Amino acid sequence: MIEPVVLKGFRDSLPAQEIPKRRLMTKLESIFSMYGFAPIDTPALEYTSVLLGKGGGETDKQIFHFTDNGGREVALRFDLTVPFARFTAAHSAQLPHPFKRYHISKVWRGENPQKGRYREFHQCDFDIVGVDNAYADAEILSMMSYCFETIFQGDKGAYVFHISHRGLFNSFLDHIGAREASVEVLRTVDKLRKIGRDEVKAQLTSILGSGEKADMTLSFIEKPEGESFLDTLGRLEALCGGSNSAADRLREVYTLLEAEGISSSFSFDPSITRGLDYYTGIVYETFLTGAPSIGSVCSGGRYDNLAGLYTKEDLPGVGSSIGLDRLLAALEDLGSPLLGGKASADVLIASEDKATWYAKDAALAAALRREGVRTDVYELPVKKMKAVYEYATRASIRLVLTRGHDGTLKLKDTASQETWTLAEEEAAIEIRKRV
Amino acid sequence: MIEPVVLKGFRDSLPAQEIPKRRLMTKLESIFSMYGFAPIDTPALEYTSVLLGKGGGETDKQIFHFTDNGGREVALRFDLTVPFARFTAAHSAQLPHPFKRYHISKVWRGENPQKGRYREFHQCDFDIVGVDNAYADAEILSMMSYCFETIFQGDKGAYVFHISHRGLFNSFLDHIGAREASVEVLRTVDKLRKIGRDEVKAQLTSILGSGEKADMTLSFIEKPEGESFLDTLGRLEALCGGSNSAADRLREVYTLLEAEGISSSFSFDPSITRGLDYYTGIVYETFLTGAPSIGSVCSGGRYDNLAGLYTKEDLPGVGSSIGLDRLLAALEDLGSPLLGGKASADVLIASEDKATWYAKDAALAAALRREGVRTDVYELPVKKMKAVYEYATRASIRLVLTRGHDGTLKLKDTASQETWTLAEEEAAIEIRKRV
Repeated sequence: MIEPVVLKGFRDSLPAQEIPKRRLMTKLESIFSMYGFAPIDTPALEYTSVLLGKGGGETDKQIFHFTDNGGREVALRFDLTVPFARFTAAHSAQLPHPFKRYHISKVWRGENPQKGRYREFHQCDFDIVGVDNAYADAEILSMMSYCFETIFQGDKGAYVFHISHRGLFNSFLDHIGAREASVEVLRTVDKLRKIGRDEVKAQLTSILGSGEKADMTLSFIEKPEGESFLDTLGRLEALCGGSNSAADRLREVYTLLEAEGISSSFSFDPSITRGLDYYTGIVYETFLTGAPSIGSVCSGGRYDNLAGLYTKEDLPGVGSSIGLDRLLAALEDLGSPLLGGKASADVLIASEDKATWYAKDAALAAALRREGVRTDVYELPVKKMKAVYEYATRASIRLVLTRGHDGTLKLKDTASQETWTLAEEEAAIEIRKRV
Repeated sequence: MIEPVVLKGFRDSLPAQEIPKRRLMTKLESIFSMYGFAPIDTPALEYTSVLLGKGGGETDKQIFHFTDNGGREVALRFDLTVPFARFTAAHSAQLPHPFKRYHISKVWRGENPQKGRYREFHQCDFDIVGVDNAYADAEILSMMSYCFETIFQGDKGAYVFHISHRGLFNSFLDHIGAREASVEVLRTVDKLRKIGRDEVKAQLTSILGSGEKADMTLSFIEKPEGESFLDTLGRLEALCGGSNSAADRLREVYTLLEAEGISSSFSFDPSITRGLDYYTGIVYETFLTGAPSIGSVCSGGRYDNLAGLYTKEDLPGVGSSIGLDRLLAALEDLGSPLLGGKASADVLIASEDKATWYAKDAALAAALRREGVRTDVYELPVKKMKAVYEYATRASIRLVLTRGHDGTLKLKDTASQETWTLAEEEAAIEIRKRV
């Protein structure tokens, strides 16, 4: 007998996990489609050299690579961005410009599984490439806003988007003559929550050679409670020595968000630095009010040139990535009914005499499905209701409709324990009401 | 500069391919959900030994296997059945029994790419395990029927299901005392279209040692034109020497299909043998009337024991697999509008002065999306309409709505070349009518 085991860092997805996941993915896909974004797909396996061409940067990605039977160095894709860069370079002549695409699919990384991370997980990316303006920046933010508004069913207090602009901090460092120290300064600032303000100020004073410059840096990243978006922007502009293109772009984007009536979901957070250093413009993260410690569930920003390693064509872009697994885990912890639960069906139809009542059972199931009620027809003639209820419990099906030997229909709500006798003609509608 | 190439046998999926594919997959998923089937997922990468445990049989699957960094022999899954067997064995205690699941996902095979085959493709499987009766057999067929009826928008003449039962032919061979020659006989019979009747008869006479037995075998697999399902069944039962469990099961399943009103889509085809020899009961294939040469687009059957290599628990099952790529290619060849086309949006909104009219454009896009109209907002202020039309052409968007500097809206149907001037308040509804 072979042990039915999976590799370390990999896992099966049972219905209880997969049903909410698919529901969320379907919801997101329909929003992306509504915004005119096109789906694409790329191979799971690529030439290692092509994937690595993008370069490492600060992200420590462990690639799942192999030598195939033909002696080629191949690897499973570790994100959807590098394949997108290659894709865009390869098919530029056929794609609309600008190009708006979404891609929801698996990626693989050789993460250390002991850290509780998985080696296989879904990413959900959406980008607009081939244009560099505030309209494209705002479009991504608008779509993100609509996604989260939909996920949280209109409860705008459940989430907040933090935005900033990579260029703004660079402008500030230019102004205080510390641009060449930007990597060190950013790294130090990132440790604020871990090592505390005093230690950060001490380290900044050392790096910048001045306590005053350290103070200016701290006042750049620390926002006073309740300061409005535009007030923060004005204050930081002053710290930068006056107007600059980064501030102008942020102001323009905010104006567009206001015009669309969604600006209240956006908070200016000058402390955002974003791990991936290929962002060159607006950057953003998304936090859930009810689960602040899990970090960002949707992050992204604007980048200069997507596919510079593969094509001479300049392709600036802006995009975002939803951390599906993290978001699903948070929604689960929040006990949120938003994803519709884990049930594989809304009603289970169990007949004591399937042979006699087959036609009626089939007609009833068809009527229920026409009403949009997910209907599971129990495949065995009922001998003991205990087995039927066990089945319903494991499948998380709340409503159980039983047909007796004489054909009568009884509906039971296994949550409330209520039961009703239903007439054939009204059964589908009565059940739909209770779903 | 790195060449943006993919591995041999792998390919990108551009919007023109991915949009119809996603639409089909979403449609199928919703039907499976309506029947109470639960989605699952399994890892793309597994232990080679676990995957191969199922055994080869007559199918020549070339596995994509590697040695990973930890020295483990790992492989990409080559189908969804073996992972399902392992999955069911691993999680049996949590799953409902019987268990109905669907799984739409990628698999990988080391096929020879010169033959025009790909090494990476989607499979779409649905099975019911843990029960062996006619109701489960009929449920799978009912769902298949509903899938194809939906795909072909009610045109029941567009497809036909051929069914048979592996046990029936075995019964016949028992009756003529030739059971031990079953593999040879089946292989010979399979060559009928290639080598012709006379040659097949000659080979059968040689294998069976009798011209009469060869004739009986041919009359078993050759069905007279217009013979009804039940008449064929009766005739074959007689050839088997009388009633047997395979014939009984087929008759029972057919009766259920009749009761449900879908039996006219099913044809009894005694010549079906099915490549995978682990089927032990009912077997079926699906043919498109408009594309007979492409072979079956949905095949499957009943099998004795899904997970015998992984668990002592007996798990008989019945299931089916839709060949998504083959079906999509056929629908494309049939020029079918069924999948809704390749457009990434229904309407493109292009403004000559985005800054002034941003709020109105945003409100209009939101109104359109509420009406279910996929709306792409062109990210650049319009300089030349030529660029806008080029964009619409590449994205296959038929309707283009332009807003002039003065705010007036003009709608153009790029297919008919008609244009209309629209008032702001009616624009969303007028556009929806024309989608």
